[in-house]
Amino acid sequence: MEKKITVLPGDGIGPEVVTAAVEVLQAVAKKYEHSFHFAYATIGGAAIDQHNDPLPTETIELCEESDAILLGAVGGPKWDNNPSDLRPEKGLLRIRKHFDLFSNLRPVQAIPSMLKSSPLKEEIVQDVDLLIVRELTGGLYFGDRNRTDDEAFDSLTYTRPEIERIVDNAFTLARLRRKKLTSVDKANVLDTSRLWREIVEEKKAQYPDVSVEHSLVDSTAMKLITAPADYDVIVTENMFGDILSDEASVITGSLGVLPSASMRSDNFGLYEPVHGSAPEIAGKGIANPAATILSAAMLLQYSFGMSEEAKAIEKAVSNVFEKGYFTGDMAHKGVQALSTNEWTERVLAEIDP
Amino acid sequence: MEKKITVLPGDGIGPEVVTAAVEVLQAVAKKYEHSFHFAYATIGGAAIDQHNDPLPTETIELCEESDAILLGAVGGPKWDNNPSDLRPEKGLLRIRKHFDLFSNLRPVQAIPSMLKSSPLKEEIVQDVDLLIVRELTGGLYFGDRNRTDDEAFDSLTYTRPEIERIVDNAFTLARLRRKKLTSVDKANVLDTSRLWREIVEEKKAQYPDVSVEHSLVDSTAMKLITAPADYDVIVTENMFGDILSDEASVITGSLGVLPSASMRSDNFGLYEPVHGSAPEIAGKGIANPAATILSAAMLLQYSFGMSEEAKAIEKAVSNVFEKGYFTGDMAHKGVQALSTNEWTERVLAEIDP
Ligand SMILES: CC(C)[C@H](C(=O)O)[C@@H](O)C(=O)O
Ligand SMILES: CC(C)[C@H](C(=O)O)[C@@H](O)C(=O)O
Repeated sequence: MEKKITVLPGDGIGPEVVTAAVEVLQAVAKKYEHSFHFAYATIGGAAIDQHNDPLPTETIELCEESDAILLGAVGGPKWDNNPSDLRPEKGLLRIRKHFDLFSNLRPVQAIPSMLKSSPLKEEIVQDVDLLIVRELTGGLYFGDRNRTDDEAFDSLTYTRPEIERIVDNAFTLARLRRKKLTSVDKANVLDTSRLWREIVEEKKAQYPDVSVEHSLVDSTAMKLITAPADYDVIVTENMFGDILSDEASVITGSLGVLPSASMRSDNFGLYEPVHGSAPEIAGKGIANPAATILSAAMLLQYSFGMSEEAKAIEKAVSNVFEKGYFTGDMAHKGVQALSTNEWTERVLAEIDP
Repeated sequence: MEKKITVLPGDGIGPEVVTAAVEVLQAVAKKYEHSFHFAYATIGGAAIDQHNDPLPTETIELCEESDAILLGAVGGPKWDNNPSDLRPEKGLLRIRKHFDLFSNLRPVQAIPSMLKSSPLKEEIVQDVDLLIVRELTGGLYFGDRNRTDDEAFDSLTYTRPEIERIVDNAFTLARLRRKKLTSVDKANVLDTSRLWREIVEEKKAQYPDVSVEHSLVDSTAMKLITAPADYDVIVTENMFGDILSDEASVITGSLGVLPSASMRSDNFGLYEPVHGSAPEIAGKGIANPAATILSAAMLLQYSFGMSEEAKAIEKAVSNVFEKGYFTGDMAHKGVQALSTNEWTERVLAEIDP
């Protein structure tokens, strides 16, 4: 297959980790006889510096011509005091809305070699294998807002179609996994949550093979710590998803390797590591590229339907970990820390021995 | 001193745990020569059953005549399918608003004898000693809302005075502790959060001895797991506070002993355990009354200014734990589990040996 990928390196360690992921994608293309075309554009702080706009028109146009987007990370202290329209994360919010990337997928899986660095006890997290499906283009993030010096206002609106499509998406994903769906809301307080819960109840009949539970956001925040292995797929609205997916990202000690996908309904999507731009280690060649490489695997699977190729990358990454090769953020005492390049070489060697 | 306390036993184990706490308050009254008058009223499911109203007028009137409120817990499966105005938790929401209980205090402290039951590693939680100050009468909980079958809407509004009083409250509390305040918001998205952050910045000058940091709600949800001992006082708006305080309540393994206070500006307040009504063990005489007893200690301290008396209760409870006496929920293997009464007797014996 021939595919176009727009690469948005972004800020901090973004350029380093996307370089590694692109190398891996190229190796996969060669091995499986695809041809991937990579085109580069700016977003976030880099785009503000070059174009005074965190999401320049050139970037949007390039993305529109491509089949998927691979993003590094955005943000850094340099732009922290900018007005809100000229902040790096505004580029992220705008690209989500522009491309209608309504479904944010954040898988969290326990990796045996990393459980030592989990803040939680091993027996609590060893069987964790969950997927958070977060609604990404509605709710408080994109509602009307307004403020004066004396009062401020944000609005949380959801329409039936907005809820239906994310709920359908989550049911479909649950079907491909352990067939258990947890819908998270605050139905004892919010009208949007009550509508959300009703729609999940209505949809149940269409997916009789999936078991469904409703859970309040506050008790979910507890259970993600006390019994995270009980979850399979969690679906929730934008703000709750922001909080819960970040909470979930640290439980297994593997934040540095977590990928994410933000999808449109036609499988076009944006793929990026969950971790941030880590400005403090940028440019040193020591960043961990695993999360971005695994995001590239999600890209192949979800946007290009290349399951075998995606699995090959995932397998390569887990083999490298199992063989005891780590970048500095993950290396235990007595183990030599590899550079970004050295570690990526090991992954490439697994893909094409 | 002579004081009136309204007791709202509520549902499930509520009646059992408030009985224990009232006994402890009576013992304190005797020892320190106060006279506490207890008057009982209904709330939640019990009030729905008796008065078809989760917060009957009689209850409100009794509370209005008293100096503080002690609450057990509300809720249970019996009322789960009631319309939203006839649900137990509506009684809670209404009593908060009616009495302007704008400041919810939720302390979380590591208790050495309980760290074994923490889902987190001991080294992460052993030094935890934090206080969450949650705004309790504004935001999404009490905004306009509306829904049809096809769309739903909730609104998040904060006025300057609403934010100022909770922020002042948090600064004042930080002064009495380790003088570190973390203000949590989502200022990269919400206008209410930007106003919140500005007000915290303005207030800083009035409390030069308190160090202040701003933290986004999503990264706070992570740090409560990875580095909870770094926090002293956390202040945040209503919905974020709901989620983060529940998250924080499970990190030390001591959910069963966590108290809470919901305060008005004149020190009138409502005190209740953080745990719920636990209908599955109600009426068996095995509930853990520690959280309610510690809530009674907060009542003495915050509403009646009786610090010595409050400390006497806290000391009694921690002595009983240190001597190895636990109710069933906390007893480790090989240790005999005491009943609610037996355990309360031990506390009473510590107070008046
Ligand atoms: C940067 C920020 C606006 C963004 C969000 O809140 O969605 C981020 O936290 C995320 O989860 O991708
Ligand atoms: C019962 C519910 C409405 C309530 C809340 O969300 O405030 C509870 O979760 C709490 O934290 O006291």
